[in-house]
Amino acid sequence: MAEIVNLASSETPAGLVDVATSDGVVTLTLANPPAHVLSMEMIGALHEALLAAREDRAVRVVVLAATGKIFCAGHDLKEMAAHRRDPDRGRVFLEELFRRCSEMMKAVVRLPMPVIAKVGGVATAAGCQLVASCDLAIASETARFCTPGVNLGGFCSTPMVALSRNLSRKHAMEMLLTGEMIDAATAREFGLVNRVVPEEYLDQVVEKYAAAIASKSPVAIARGKRAFYEQADMRLSEAYDYASAVMVDGFMTRDSEEGLDAFFDKREPEWTGE
Amino acid sequence: MAEIVNLASSETPAGLVDVATSDGVVTLTLANPPAHVLSMEMIGALHEALLAAREDRAVRVVVLAATGKIFCAGHDLKEMAAHRRDPDRGRVFLEELFRRCSEMMKAVVRLPMPVIAKVGGVATAAGCQLVASCDLAIASETARFCTPGVNLGGFCSTPMVALSRNLSRKHAMEMLLTGEMIDAATAREFGLVNRVVPEEYLDQVVEKYAAAIASKSPVAIARGKRAFYEQADMRLSEAYDYASAVMVDGFMTRDSEEGLDAFFDKREPEWTGE
Amino acid sequence: MAEIVNLASSETPAGLVDVATSDGVVTLTLANPPAHVLSMEMIGALHEALLAAREDRAVRVVVLAATGKIFCAGHDLKEMAAHRRDPDRGRVFLEELFRRCSEMMKAVVRLPMPVIAKVGGVATAAGCQLVASCDLAIASETARFCTPGVNLGGFCSTPMVALSRNLSRKHAMEMLLTGEMIDAATAREFGLVNRVVPEEYLDQVVEKYAAAIASKSPVAIARGKRAFYEQADMRLSEAYDYASAVMVDGFMTRDSEEGLDAFFDKREPEWTGE
Repeated sequence: MAEIVNLASSETPAGLVDVATSDGVVTLTLANPPAHVLSMEMIGALHEALLAAREDRAVRVVVLAATGKIFCAGHDLKEMAAHRRDPDRGRVFLEELFRRCSEMMKAVVRLPMPVIAKVGGVATAAGCQLVASCDLAIASETARFCTPGVNLGGFCSTPMVALSRNLSRKHAMEMLLTGEMIDAATAREFGLVNRVVPEEYLDQVVEKYAAAIASKSPVAIARGKRAFYEQADMRLSEAYDYASAVMVDGFMTRDSEEGLDAFFDKREPEWTGE
Repeated sequence: MAEIVNLASSETPAGLVDVATSDGVVTLTLANPPAHVLSMEMIGALHEALLAAREDRAVRVVVLAATGKIFCAGHDLKEMAAHRRDPDRGRVFLEELFRRCSEMMKAVVRLPMPVIAKVGGVATAAGCQLVASCDLAIASETARFCTPGVNLGGFCSTPMVALSRNLSRKHAMEMLLTGEMIDAATAREFGLVNRVVPEEYLDQVVEKYAAAIASKSPVAIARGKRAFYEQADMRLSEAYDYASAVMVDGFMTRDSEEGLDAFFDKREPEWTGE
Repeated sequence: MAEIVNLASSETPAGLVDVATSDGVVTLTLANPPAHVLSMEMIGALHEALLAAREDRAVRVVVLAATGKIFCAGHDLKEMAAHRRDPDRGRVFLEELFRRCSEMMKAVVRLPMPVIAKVGGVATAAGCQLVASCDLAIASETARFCTPGVNLGGFCSTPMVALSRNLSRKHAMEMLLTGEMIDAATAREFGLVNRVVPEEYLDQVVEKYAAAIASKSPVAIARGKRAFYEQADMRLSEAYDYASAVMVDGFMTRDSEEGLDAFFDKREPEWTGE
């Protein structure tokens, strides 16, 4: 994980991300209204919050949320436009911005605990990428998704890295080339979100998923999540060799032993996280 | 295929897999009721039956089936738990178990003839992996699917190799992280099975698919199946170079010549398998 | 692009592909009725038309179309059968045919402008491959799709390169192993086409998509399309490094600057294509 930027020394202001923990579930709520844009500061704050969750042994699941009609509108266009006035027309700033943003997105994928996107509003560009980067995504019927770079003379090239690893090619291309909004039902059909629920049930359904996952052994989940993304890039034989080793190591853990014992004793298991 | 374990010398007991051949279709029925678990012996028996089908020139299609409410419940947990008492707490046994199981699953993928899973019951863990490893899968409305490793302090890491090559990421992650059962309709939506039919039509629909495939040239099917999985792991240009060579070689076979002649003569082709 | 065959000297007869340009949209209509087969000449004519579109700075979108009940029936079986009488039973001819066909299919993928398949009829074998190779595909309710190589003692091995990059494994295998026709609704469900519309609306819906894409910056679209297919073959970290560089370079273009300015000024952007 050497490529994760050291954020300890950066000036991520408190307040951009609300952190609430309950029963092993930490909810990170973007708090940069109304569009919760991923400014350089917000990227840093979110990355820092993810790393803090990682270090907290009580955290089993992370929920990414936002309040209001917009889940996240992607990068801060005003911030980017302002750097047009830099001597290099913003190149150095942009390089740093996209490097940090990509590291933050990869941190979602690499976090040992599952990350659930809870999407009640519009997720566009890097906001849509954030949803695609999560392990699971639950949306309300009011959610909307879009990769609108083409409407601004650009292209959502970094969002498409996450998008194209979730959607089939023609679906991803339709979003990227037209820049048009899709509704929650279409996002579910495309595989961008797992479930769509009425707005008033969003909290409850996300809580149900989070609680189900939080009840599992954290060491088993962490090993499994990492192995999932590792083997996805391998050829079949390599993937089986790797996964078999992960499986055997998994069975040697105390939680696996406890899990099997509890199963045979017909009782609830008690995880030690080892 | 050097990595396929030599099973000729292993003690795979007769009776664990029923073998029935009819009109070029061999049906391998798991016969380890009630859960048809993939014990070390069952893995060996199934692998042996697959290799025997491979050597039988009359076999055009393999159907994997099971009777009762459970299609296959995955590994034999009692067998695994018993090896906890080994001096090494079972590590050597588990390494051999997962190596043999992975080789058997790869043998399904590498078998020259297509393998159809006929799923009338519950397929969990490595049983779900077996369905995902088949080329086609037909399920009845009573079929259910699950990767429940997380419920036992583990993670279905080897099943996910096959699962993630069939399902989109968020669908696979939902099954793996929650360990919850999905019904047949959801499995079809996720791409895990091709069709769902009423229970009383399962035999007939599988027979229809098997007969359709059995009527094709076996040499053409064998070349095509192998090429399918080979090119799937290649980049586009490499895949086209490889597939073009396969295509030309295919057209030089006698069955291809016969196929074209029969097409122009408006008659049924007669395959020689060459 | 050194691997693109030099077609300038080949004898691609005029008339095999109708070319019509309107408002930045060039429509290439296969004109080899009734089946619009991909003979050696047709492959050359289509490849040449694609390269001509590439060189025409006015072209923003390419539409691939055909008239009649058949969109494209794949290779010219009569031409292939005739070469059975060559001293080498056609091997050299077939090698050249599949090499040129693969180069033409790759030219669709590599064309800087998006290519939309407009499918009103039956697309089989390499005709189905052509649809799968396009960035987007819109079909009428009368469209049908099939990879029937297995019915002729062969296997659609080159079509499956494109097919398997659009469809999930079991869906692709079902088409390839059975050789059976699927209807437009199934093709949409499988991800082979983006939308299915009543026959009388096909023109209008394709025009809407083409116009939407033609209104974007061509330089942004070209960079984005190329990056899409490049990053699709990379591992996650490599893909993010690559896409971040593409993103920064994109923001340094004049069209990106104009796009942002227009956005803040709440006016329509005017692209310079730089």
